[in-house]
Amino acid sequence: MTYPLLSHSEEAELQLRLEKIRRAMAEADLEAILIGATPNAFYLTGGIYNGFAYIPIEGEPRFFFIPPCESDSKLVRTVRKPEMISPILAEEGYPVAKTLGLELDELSYSEIERLKKCFPGAVYGNATAVMRKARLTKTPQQIKAMEEDGKKQAAVYARIPSLWHEDMTDIELQVEIERLLRLEGNLGYLRAAGRRMELNMGSLIAGDNADAPSPYDFSMGGAGVDPSLPVGASGMILKPGMAVMIDMNGGFNGYQTDMTRTWSIGRPGELTLRAHNCSVEILHDLEKFALPGMEAGELYRRAVKLAKDADLSEYFMGHRHKVAFIGHGVGIELNEAPVLMDRNKAPLEENMTLAIEPKFVIPGVGAVGIENTYVVTASGLRNITVLDERLNEL
Amino acid sequence: MTYPLLSHSEEAELQLRLEKIRRAMAEADLEAILIGATPNAFYLTGGIYNGFAYIPIEGEPRFFFIPPCESDSKLVRTVRKPEMISPILAEEGYPVAKTLGLELDELSYSEIERLKKCFPGAVYGNATAVMRKARLTKTPQQIKAMEEDGKKQAAVYARIPSLWHEDMTDIELQVEIERLLRLEGNLGYLRAAGRRMELNMGSLIAGDNADAPSPYDFSMGGAGVDPSLPVGASGMILKPGMAVMIDMNGGFNGYQTDMTRTWSIGRPGELTLRAHNCSVEILHDLEKFALPGMEAGELYRRAVKLAKDADLSEYFMGHRHKVAFIGHGVGIELNEAPVLMDRNKAPLEENMTLAIEPKFVIPGVGAVGIENTYVVTASGLRNITVLDERLNEL
Repeated sequence: MTYPLLSHSEEAELQLRLEKIRRAMAEADLEAILIGATPNAFYLTGGIYNGFAYIPIEGEPRFFFIPPCESDSKLVRTVRKPEMISPILAEEGYPVAKTLGLELDELSYSEIERLKKCFPGAVYGNATAVMRKARLTKTPQQIKAMEEDGKKQAAVYARIPSLWHEDMTDIELQVEIERLLRLEGNLGYLRAAGRRMELNMGSLIAGDNADAPSPYDFSMGGAGVDPSLPVGASGMILKPGMAVMIDMNGGFNGYQTDMTRTWSIGRPGELTLRAHNCSVEILHDLEKFALPGMEAGELYRRAVKLAKDADLSEYFMGHRHKVAFIGHGVGIELNEAPVLMDRNKAPLEENMTLAIEPKFVIPGVGAVGIENTYVVTASGLRNITVLDERLNEL
Repeated sequence: MTYPLLSHSEEAELQLRLEKIRRAMAEADLEAILIGATPNAFYLTGGIYNGFAYIPIEGEPRFFFIPPCESDSKLVRTVRKPEMISPILAEEGYPVAKTLGLELDELSYSEIERLKKCFPGAVYGNATAVMRKARLTKTPQQIKAMEEDGKKQAAVYARIPSLWHEDMTDIELQVEIERLLRLEGNLGYLRAAGRRMELNMGSLIAGDNADAPSPYDFSMGGAGVDPSLPVGASGMILKPGMAVMIDMNGGFNGYQTDMTRTWSIGRPGELTLRAHNCSVEILHDLEKFALPGMEAGELYRRAVKLAKDADLSEYFMGHRHKVAFIGHGVGIELNEAPVLMDRNKAPLEENMTLAIEPKFVIPGVGAVGIENTYVVTASGLRNITVLDERLNEL
């Protein structure tokens, strides 16, 4: 187990991330936070450990590793259980935090209650909100990791047409894409927040299945092949006249890019092609339209307007069932802040990374459109999932 | 989305499961429980929905589905949010529960606090413990589903030698197994409880990598290929003299069987072969030894004793890092009750399903041994993952 950010050579990067966290802590009036959730642990150390991190608003953080996790960093202490943390902090002269943030949206009720008992008497705040805010904008190192992830994901997507053959089912094509992603280094694990995000390595939907609603919080549905996982490919044979939307995930290095491309089996119909091109046009419009300082909700409203102007509202972001967002932050987790939905008044900031996915569901044909992952820059959105965006034939 | 258990034809099965739940509720002094976690939702409906289930100790349960989830079952009501549940129950004449179980180990602190506000004034108990107890023993229908899963998993395992070729890396072999599992219908999603169980579709470890500890709660470790997911295969080339332990998961129908087989590249050394055979002998011993009424911890102690008698304690359940269990319940989730560890005094019961995995780590060679999933019967353990158990050469 390696922890790059706890090494001496990466001290500046750790400090950069701690500064972001402490700004969010100050806004939330928290004197300290205690971190245990895996995505936050990875953000803080560059690796996954069993244990906790204690971050005071001032002074050195302390990482409490439970064996077999170990590190020779001077910031790491070894504990067997969380009850041992508070005595060590006292011994090292840390003041007792009167306000303490815990990850209320990520840890179970039982675990939070246990942690409260380890730090009695504090006023407890929400460290999930703090970390979400800190992770809202990415550091140059994180953006580099995401660019690498996007390149690898795009390189696999470029080979998708070579994986297809006639009379293949949607599942069969998806499995060949999964295999190629894995062979190229994809870790095969989708890190997502919340209990409504169960999925293997992504989704492939075609034909009528694109219009089947799902109980999950993904942008598109699909019936799946079993009621125990009702999402995505349904086992249907891919036939001429169908559009095949492929929304598999990145995930090569702890970071994810989110990318969708769509192929047509045979020549697409007029409505299908027009809707696909509208998706591409919406993205190209937003690439210039979106600027730091703008409300996240503005992007949603702009996309809805452009779909309406093209007379395609009926199909936009679903047909039988519609979702009320057109994109979301992405990074360590697939679903980070901000959500690009109407009521989100949070301003865009430079170095946010956004997955934007204006999609259309055409009944009987499938879903069309694309999704790119972008970095927010001073002059607009910079695409890091670069690949042919057209509705090509498979 | 289908919900088999909410259909008229499956009413008897739903009642059987409700009886188990209500026995556990009575023991916990709970007048009602509110269920939201995915594995419990699947147990109750045979499908995944967005929403909640309310189960009173007497009277009909009510399922509260959030659109687009829908059902024509007379037990289902539609809500947009949990705040709408309590008024509907009152309107339908349900008494206010003075003691209410919520899934304290499964839902986040924030979600539990929100649900408490929906049912103010109750004494709150732990519905996770209730559901864990109810799901401890399986119904005949559940056992049938697990038998089917075990047959499919074993059929793929039987083909593993055909996937191997010289100079392959551990990851490459794992990817080919993943592909075959998926093509045969594996859903590709590992449902596991707790935040220390991140993994794709299982684990393959060989050589020195078997001795690399992991921060996760799996029985065996492995360094993985990236610090963001430090478990399992590490990208090494599989070479003569290595043992290759394959512990991929079932998961074809919402149920999982857990199964491990090990292959040797070239002829295994004496210690390697002896340790593997000891694992098989421990299992064959436990198959007769384990009977309903016996403490779960007895199985652990028996296995430890047999490994010691064979003078193999040094390698048993890990070498550099050891784990303190030899198996666990399995079903909808990979890690169900009971855990087969020393201090577990819970009695075995008929129709429990147990994955038992006495494994040895031989430094420089890899991990050896096998794992089967068993049904506890009146006369011992019945294996439902039947396949050649020997340490064969790849």
